[in-house]
Amino acid sequence: MRAAEIDEKFPVVDVDSSALEAARLVAEHSLPGIVVVTADEQLYAVLTASQVVRFIVPTYVQDDPLLACVLAESIADRAADRLRGKTIRELLPQRQRTLPAADADDTIIEVATIMETLRSPLIPVMRQGKLHGVITASRLLAVALECGLIEKKQFRAVARAD
Amino acid sequence: MRAAEIDEKFPVVDVDSSALEAARLVAEHSLPGIVVVTADEQLYAVLTASQVVRFIVPTYVQDDPLLACVLAESIADRAADRLRGKTIRELLPQRQRTLPAADADDTIIEVATIMETLRSPLIPVMRQGKLHGVITASRLLAVALECGLIEKKQFRAVARAD
Repeated sequence: MRAAEIDEKFPVVDVDSSALEAARLVAEHSLPGIVVVTADEQLYAVLTASQVVRFIVPTYVQDDPLLACVLAESIADRAADRLRGKTIRELLPQRQRTLPAADADDTIIEVATIMETLRSPLIPVMRQGKLHGVITASRLLAVALECGLIEKKQFRAVARAD
Repeated sequence: MRAAEIDEKFPVVDVDSSALEAARLVAEHSLPGIVVVTADEQLYAVLTASQVVRFIVPTYVQDDPLLACVLAESIADRAADRLRGKTIRELLPQRQRTLPAADADDTIIEVATIMETLRSPLIPVMRQGKLHGVITASRLLAVALECGLIEKKQFRAVARAD
């Protein structure tokens, strides 16, 4: 089985769209993350849900996590304010990070290896430079386990026939 | 708002239980990960879905990810075989990793900071050494955005009254 056979449709957001809407998307649909593209449909970033959570953490806390403990509850509760009027691009870290992506022809193990090496619960699948679909960790496990189950069942059937 | 007010029930698995069942749990319920405990209910590990995917990657590929490309499709498709008859403990990496956990009294920003620093989409909330509940990234975002919305609505109402 190859990546392009098991990938699925997945919400894609524009890098210059609202960060608040992106966070809402993750919250409402319990998504493992989001795929960020440019206006000309080029893959720009893959953000895990925990990286989207970073959007609501004030920059001075991101720089010094120990400051999180001294923040008053009333200020912590207004965390979402940081997202208002901001685009995803404005909240993304400046430093370039490895972009997780699989090729349409990659096997399950190749996708699994990218997933666990980059610790990304979602992997965009590219075909000829274009986004073909996305494989989530739960989708990959479902496919892998189903394969195993089918094989197991076949094996049992053979065993019974014998 | 404090961690213990927003945490939720979440599937917990025993470290000596079947790795296959744990992977199935993640696959079937599209979970962001699993919380692993010992027989005496002590927190043992928090595995993200991408770390559970690691369970199906052969050890020699984990050690040298480049080997993933040379694996035949027929072998890759039998990935789930690696899980059969194995416990979670047997498949966990030996090296100790930081255990993400929040305290019952932590604020939203404290939980968010742990989440994004450790890149974990789920954080167990502890109260007096016992697991009180779990906060997922999507839950945290939902709570944070709802707070913001309530506040925004209140502000608008005040503005109208004026």
